[in-house]
Amino acid sequence: MNVPIRVGFDRLKSYIADALRVVGMPPVDTAQVSELMAQADLQGSDGHGVLRLPQYVKRIKAGGINLKPDIRVVRDHPGSAVVDGDNGMGHLVVSRMVDIAIGKAKQCGVAWVGARASNHAGPASLYARMPLQQDMVSLYFAVGNANHLPPWGGAEMLLSTNPIAAGIPTDSEPPLVLDMATTVAAYGKVKSKAKAGEMMPVGWMIDRKGQPLTDPKRADDGFLLPIGGHKGAGLALIVGLLAGTLQGAAMGREVVDFNKDHRSKTNTGQAILVIDLHAFGDPEDFKARVDSLIRDIRSSERLDGVEKIWLPGEQSHMRRQRYLQEGIPISTGVANDLAALSGELGIQPPF
Amino acid sequence: MNVPIRVGFDRLKSYIADALRVVGMPPVDTAQVSELMAQADLQGSDGHGVLRLPQYVKRIKAGGINLKPDIRVVRDHPGSAVVDGDNGMGHLVVSRMVDIAIGKAKQCGVAWVGARASNHAGPASLYARMPLQQDMVSLYFAVGNANHLPPWGGAEMLLSTNPIAAGIPTDSEPPLVLDMATTVAAYGKVKSKAKAGEMMPVGWMIDRKGQPLTDPKRADDGFLLPIGGHKGAGLALIVGLLAGTLQGAAMGREVVDFNKDHRSKTNTGQAILVIDLHAFGDPEDFKARVDSLIRDIRSSERLDGVEKIWLPGEQSHMRRQRYLQEGIPISTGVANDLAALSGELGIQPPF
Repeated sequence: MNVPIRVGFDRLKSYIADALRVVGMPPVDTAQVSELMAQADLQGSDGHGVLRLPQYVKRIKAGGINLKPDIRVVRDHPGSAVVDGDNGMGHLVVSRMVDIAIGKAKQCGVAWVGARASNHAGPASLYARMPLQQDMVSLYFAVGNANHLPPWGGAEMLLSTNPIAAGIPTDSEPPLVLDMATTVAAYGKVKSKAKAGEMMPVGWMIDRKGQPLTDPKRADDGFLLPIGGHKGAGLALIVGLLAGTLQGAAMGREVVDFNKDHRSKTNTGQAILVIDLHAFGDPEDFKARVDSLIRDIRSSERLDGVEKIWLPGEQSHMRRQRYLQEGIPISTGVANDLAALSGELGIQPPF
Repeated sequence: MNVPIRVGFDRLKSYIADALRVVGMPPVDTAQVSELMAQADLQGSDGHGVLRLPQYVKRIKAGGINLKPDIRVVRDHPGSAVVDGDNGMGHLVVSRMVDIAIGKAKQCGVAWVGARASNHAGPASLYARMPLQQDMVSLYFAVGNANHLPPWGGAEMLLSTNPIAAGIPTDSEPPLVLDMATTVAAYGKVKSKAKAGEMMPVGWMIDRKGQPLTDPKRADDGFLLPIGGHKGAGLALIVGLLAGTLQGAAMGREVVDFNKDHRSKTNTGQAILVIDLHAFGDPEDFKARVDSLIRDIRSSERLDGVEKIWLPGEQSHMRRQRYLQEGIPISTGVANDLAALSGELGIQPPF
């Protein structure tokens, strides 16, 4: 097994910013995108961080991303809005979408803001976390950028891993942050396994004959499995309708496989629900109750062989602290890709 | 195998109303509750329909339900509200909650209304369906009325089956209605299996040693399994926080097991998100796109041995039509319970 290289958070961020600047992204945007991408790696969402940089660069060079987007609100109601991302980087579009939702939730108690003409934006949890500082709860939905999931009983991949994320504010405990694909494994995890040269566990994917598929390099020969069988497939459908169809974004056969097509507009859809705790009582009361529930769960009886009960977001929280000290691990496969990218762009690699 | 008795929808409804009237529920409320309970059986949600009547009657007789509740809004913002159910029947509280949410969504584009001091209200899908007629999308969340699920890795049942339901309007296709427990099986399905004298499939429950538990009569010796392992357990937690804690309703150790305790207030929590399609464009466009997606899915390639790809809510839709013609099947176990109940209350059984 390869020992990963470690890179500091600030160095990783400045490297990503360098790469994006060379391909023409304005500095104010490189700062925002590189921060979010490095945050993804910092929390261990390594299927959604710097691993994606070569692909983003390829898409930008192919003209598949608008580097000067006019990101604007095209539908506006007191508690809801639709943002048109004008095919800009997803990180920029979704950050704007969340900001608008936070402002509207302050007025109405709740807000739903969605985006169309957006792009891949990294891990859902980054955006679900944003309202937490304002004492707001969030539920985030996204349409995945490649269809890897058939409807239940089907063999045509009409659905994606369409994730759900949630953020729940706490007092002294780490915030609860759930981020889950509606498939057993997210496709980014399949990519990570391929880059790391590892096999996948049985249960992540099946081939077209229904047999387990464990070699991530053969991912194109099969499809992902939904959580809970028909339930997960149903959930992926609903999430896609909420994040995609509702805003006029791509869903079903309209979804562009951004792993294979670097040029076509993806018309990606995302949406966030933000709930202001102030509309439901004293936020401190709520957060104290959540802390108390967390402690009940953490200290409750464990099954034999289980060392610790983890809460959603707790492992990411600990990784964030550890990686800030020790550096962020970069697998050999990703490091090789970044070395090649650095040569191509004429920039210093981060290690 | 026993052949089920069949009862017409109107007869079942009037029977339920008779029973509730005898135990003191005001007529206007018996009409509403009996309609919703019979609707549950009509769509095949037989774990949540008349099967629950003996338990409801027992709770009412024990003083565990307030038959003259003052159901009122205790927090009110333009897009959000909290309804205090005053320990009334859940069907009444949740119907009111949904009505308020529909009204607010018309104003704000979106609304979140939750309830506390509510009670068991039957299948989530009944309420997720209500906004559809107004061209509104819904997401519904509830805290289950007994904890049957430990946190992931745990052995203390601190969580319930906490369901998620969603309603998506369509044009000429049956509406998409998802209704799923965050466990592999809802506890009502375990009860149905017990009443029908059938065994459960492997994967629904495990015992305290982690071994499969398939005898529904031994349900007290084990716990339900979440969908997708840690993902489903995390989802059950988030749903409980959204439907329970946010509104000041019971969650975690506060949840009363209403199968065993017929007297204590359950302080049940439910919540609904309603999104008005009019705030996102022309609802007809949206519904046409959903219809088109449904047809893409239904006509897509199937796995070997699969006869038909079903959409969420489609089987319930067909059962509703069939049972209106043929009558609603009542299992022998449930029929025996209803015969006993009828004797106890001095009313005519429905068959």
